[in-house]
Amino acid sequence: MIIIVKQNTPREKVSELIHSLEGQNFKTHLSEGENTTIIGLVGDTSVVDIDNLKARDIVEDVRRVSEPYKKANRKFHTDDTIIEVRGQKIGGGHFAVMAGPCSVESEPQILEITGSIMQSGANFLRGGAFKPRTSPYAFQGLERNGIKFLLECKREYGIPIVTEIMGISDIPLFEDVDIIQVGARNMQNFRLLKELGHLKQPILLKRGLANTIEELLMSAEYIMSGGNENVILCERGIRTFETYTRNTFDLSAIPMIKRISHLPVIADPSHAAGLDWMVEPLAKAAVAAGADGIMIEVHNDPPHALSDGKQSLTPARFAEIMEKLKTYISLEGKKIG
Amino acid sequence: MIIIVKQNTPREKVSELIHSLEGQNFKTHLSEGENTTIIGLVGDTSVVDIDNLKARDIVEDVRRVSEPYKKANRKFHTDDTIIEVRGQKIGGGHFAVMAGPCSVESEPQILEITGSIMQSGANFLRGGAFKPRTSPYAFQGLERNGIKFLLECKREYGIPIVTEIMGISDIPLFEDVDIIQVGARNMQNFRLLKELGHLKQPILLKRGLANTIEELLMSAEYIMSGGNENVILCERGIRTFETYTRNTFDLSAIPMIKRISHLPVIADPSHAAGLDWMVEPLAKAAVAAGADGIMIEVHNDPPHALSDGKQSLTPARFAEIMEKLKTYISLEGKKIG
Amino acid sequence: MIIIVKQNTPREKVSELIHSLEGQNFKTHLSEGENTTIIGLVGDTSVVDIDNLKARDIVEDVRRVSEPYKKANRKFHTDDTIIEVRGQKIGGGHFAVMAGPCSVESEPQILEITGSIMQSGANFLRGGAFKPRTSPYAFQGLERNGIKFLLECKREYGIPIVTEIMGISDIPLFEDVDIIQVGARNMQNFRLLKELGHLKQPILLKRGLANTIEELLMSAEYIMSGGNENVILCERGIRTFETYTRNTFDLSAIPMIKRISHLPVIADPSHAAGLDWMVEPLAKAAVAAGADGIMIEVHNDPPHALSDGKQSLTPARFAEIMEKLKTYISLEGKKIG
Amino acid sequence: MIIIVKQNTPREKVSELIHSLEGQNFKTHLSEGENTTIIGLVGDTSVVDIDNLKARDIVEDVRRVSEPYKKANRKFHTDDTIIEVRGQKIGGGHFAVMAGPCSVESEPQILEITGSIMQSGANFLRGGAFKPRTSPYAFQGLERNGIKFLLECKREYGIPIVTEIMGISDIPLFEDVDIIQVGARNMQNFRLLKELGHLKQPILLKRGLANTIEELLMSAEYIMSGGNENVILCERGIRTFETYTRNTFDLSAIPMIKRISHLPVIADPSHAAGLDWMVEPLAKAAVAAGADGIMIEVHNDPPHALSDGKQSLTPARFAEIMEKLKTYISLEGKKIG
Repeated sequence: MIIIVKQNTPREKVSELIHSLEGQNFKTHLSEGENTTIIGLVGDTSVVDIDNLKARDIVEDVRRVSEPYKKANRKFHTDDTIIEVRGQKIGGGHFAVMAGPCSVESEPQILEITGSIMQSGANFLRGGAFKPRTSPYAFQGLERNGIKFLLECKREYGIPIVTEIMGISDIPLFEDVDIIQVGARNMQNFRLLKELGHLKQPILLKRGLANTIEELLMSAEYIMSGGNENVILCERGIRTFETYTRNTFDLSAIPMIKRISHLPVIADPSHAAGLDWMVEPLAKAAVAAGADGIMIEVHNDPPHALSDGKQSLTPARFAEIMEKLKTYISLEGKKIG
Repeated sequence: MIIIVKQNTPREKVSELIHSLEGQNFKTHLSEGENTTIIGLVGDTSVVDIDNLKARDIVEDVRRVSEPYKKANRKFHTDDTIIEVRGQKIGGGHFAVMAGPCSVESEPQILEITGSIMQSGANFLRGGAFKPRTSPYAFQGLERNGIKFLLECKREYGIPIVTEIMGISDIPLFEDVDIIQVGARNMQNFRLLKELGHLKQPILLKRGLANTIEELLMSAEYIMSGGNENVILCERGIRTFETYTRNTFDLSAIPMIKRISHLPVIADPSHAAGLDWMVEPLAKAAVAAGADGIMIEVHNDPPHALSDGKQSLTPARFAEIMEKLKTYISLEGKKIG
Repeated sequence: MIIIVKQNTPREKVSELIHSLEGQNFKTHLSEGENTTIIGLVGDTSVVDIDNLKARDIVEDVRRVSEPYKKANRKFHTDDTIIEVRGQKIGGGHFAVMAGPCSVESEPQILEITGSIMQSGANFLRGGAFKPRTSPYAFQGLERNGIKFLLECKREYGIPIVTEIMGISDIPLFEDVDIIQVGARNMQNFRLLKELGHLKQPILLKRGLANTIEELLMSAEYIMSGGNENVILCERGIRTFETYTRNTFDLSAIPMIKRISHLPVIADPSHAAGLDWMVEPLAKAAVAAGADGIMIEVHNDPPHALSDGKQSLTPARFAEIMEKLKTYISLEGKKIG
Repeated sequence: MIIIVKQNTPREKVSELIHSLEGQNFKTHLSEGENTTIIGLVGDTSVVDIDNLKARDIVEDVRRVSEPYKKANRKFHTDDTIIEVRGQKIGGGHFAVMAGPCSVESEPQILEITGSIMQSGANFLRGGAFKPRTSPYAFQGLERNGIKFLLECKREYGIPIVTEIMGISDIPLFEDVDIIQVGARNMQNFRLLKELGHLKQPILLKRGLANTIEELLMSAEYIMSGGNENVILCERGIRTFETYTRNTFDLSAIPMIKRISHLPVIADPSHAAGLDWMVEPLAKAAVAAGADGIMIEVHNDPPHALSDGKQSLTPARFAEIMEKLKTYISLEGKKIG
């Protein structure tokens, strides 16, 4: 950590600050230039509150040199984390294919979709029971019943299920859910993250629309510091000035996170672009860039889906894409499951 | 609402869609160009789920022409909403000055600050009891005790208090809080918004870092559609590529919201820039641009504040700024309280 | 094109506007809702100056329904454009591999690099003679001599060359350059674009850091409307809030442009991320997403490159990556050259 | 400047780098932590090419601690720069009001506007002769004649004129232009900037849509390092995700630039929002935030303007706004001219 001292600060003020930092068991290095004086801070700086340091009257600015996350950091955990759920693995060469409808709409619907996606090679069923919607007037999901229908699919087909949680009070409903998803809008709902840190199920944490990679890792840190180290990260597009696509799929986030963290990373090409025809190129690209899995929206009847129909694939189209994806997955030396 | 039909769609498919829309009590207008066919949809389109329409196979794109929010829309409520809290008004010419520390740190601290900010002209006390922090290793607020100390200030000085809520389960603690704040990271925590819609206290809703003005109004709509129409909006900076300031203060949002909505809008110059010396110019500018209030961080000892010290003012500096602000407030034909 | 009329506009004002539009040979359709009146405009709206229409006093807003570009639009030119340069093709199944140093530094350097990249499969030599640099104190390129050395490589190896132009006055120096590159910072240097529209060499047009896909196509339109229809588009990253990568590589732009335009699109993974180790995943992803080519920085001695060393590959590393890329290129049914 | 060394770098490699840096007359400070080693670099680092350093194989990252601009830096020039043009001053308490049409359309038009804006208090006439337009099909300005008509106004009324240059070859036409404007799209047209550095007229440099404050100052540095130190900076809005306004007016840039640079800064509220009714609140806010001037579009007949009519004011509306602005200008202790 580097502390840049304000110009013309009296020497004794600088010494005072150094003294106080050393009292907190940091080593310091002073470097005085003609126009700039800096203090280097050595030690476990992840516990330093950077804002507090910045507030000191002689401090111009403070810059981190090492990362503020520890448990999610590959520096302290060099091997890939492999997460196992009901015999299906994610990470370290194991590729996850999560497919299913944006919203669970009925029991027959979700059962039918489950059968067809499994035939195409999906090894996780995704489906929304609680739906975060921008408008209070839009369909908000089947809630409790949605989860019930997903569990019915799991019973029937043995497939592990992934579904989104929106509040702490719903945790009891998620007892038999295999992977609990935290949506983009809740990525910094720190209260929820803390509670999820006490569960034992893996958490699928989606990157917020305007959150940096560092903030995504800090949110993973919230969950991990609570004791739950099974976190899967998900890139699903960020908000930029471009309007031809709903979001801008930040492909580079995949190799970047793989390099700085040991956690598995998957991609959600359906939400990234918001367009059905773009799912194939984005999915292939995500595999090529090193993703550990993908999450794709599949609906039996997209034009009549209750949500996100524009970006959903039919089961037939999903089957076609899966055929191509399998070649790319094996080219990258990975296998599904 | 405008529906753009895909090129080369057979006529009967278009007729089918028109028929189905008219069956939902919309009027339609068909306009056929050489390369583009569009259908205009007339009626209460705020209840239309735009994603569903986009998913129809013959639909290229759908564009809203009228706003998706109703209760927050000035078109249906031309007069400014004036919110009254313990005799203090906000909106319609009444200017609110909310001041206080980022975090409540102790009872003597918050009592001391309260006395000094009131003397300078503040008519609301702000202070954080629950703090959303990016790092799990940072100070998270005094929680329950923070609220207790704020209520002590209210008892002692009669000043109404504003403080942030982070989860539904904390609602009982907020019974005597005068204005409940929803922070930027929770602007789309729809579960929380719905619950707040059933309370009677005014809600101070901060704009999310990457949320559009339209989304801010849709979140207000969530609260209002539940029955609580006392919503105060707050601009506090958005996330852009610029790094010299922590966020980019979107000043234009103030006159824009005043024009399209009847709800009061305040500005938070402390969070917008994250720099103490920039509070004065941003606060003056917010008043000049038509804000109905400002929220400013004041701390008795900024260099030793437990959070956000870099952007906090001393009581003496706050007093100086308030003297200047009063001139600007009266120039705009407004008065505090 | 849709014209949204201001609320409460008198009927005769609307009729006047309709009359004036019909006088300009547009067909119109009027659609009157309870709160919103819109006028649909049918005809060749690409020549309409949308700003002029918006300025009319009864006009609330104007929205385009069809694209403002014509020559670059796939609607009017369904087949892929294939550009041929000295026997090498780009587009329509032909993949271009452009490689070479950020800056040309000396004749031996560029000759050595050319030999090695060709051996690995590159079919175009790229190299900067004129370098746009943020700082006036940084190395600005060998200029005239840089071009001379590139032409020497062309003579020696027969490889077509690509290099960037920065101003109209340099055009004479580019007479024997095979593909003239317009850099991101000049994407809207309309003066330059107009002049390039009168040349016969293909133009490689890079997307500006903050330019939309639509603006990129409009800049292509500038060149094409001057008579030069050989434009190659290039995605090289856009500017967002993310700081872990220098730019955010907008992968979706590739399939999007392929869908709406017939022009070839290539990717520049070196500039997109600014990191040598990220070139491989981004390049593979670009191929998987449908790119018609890639542009990669290769330097004989990256640590001592005069510019952009951090993102340059050694010839050996480039050779390794090319081996993998060839598999991806043929998987997509394309071939180099 | 701080050099972060890659983990596990052998000691002798670090020594080699330090040796080479000291050979370039920098002082260095080594700071070794458990996980991170950093080298502090002291001396005139503005001439260091940061990209070169980053490319060294043992270097993880490099961070600037002091600013990369020198001539524009307030650290080396504490007093405000005051620019004088034909008796009118800008900066150091002198406020400039530049007004006029987006495009010069005819001699009578521009003469009429000049008379009226001067009566309202404007002390500079602005008007576009060369217009950068996104579409090649849009009106591109009267070019040579536009300048002729502006010079006619100057002769008639004695008012100094400001107009935009788009290319080096037009410099001869600008001989009698008082202030030469560089538009947002040319902010990094380094060739043009270099040439303008050899002229003696002040340059009005507009911030690019996606350029940081630091890049704006680096572009000023280009002009200043050529010998022309009369640069006026202009904030005119940046590109963000918000779509309700054309650009996002970055108000904070004004006090930020005033603090770190001695150059005068003006605001362009007309372009920032793109909406006539928003000019007043933004202009007042810019004054309140410390701007040294404003640039406002005024047109005799906005609904029929050939460009930017939506954001232009009538002379009568401009007169009203000026009355209010004068109060704000004097409140800030400034005066026009």
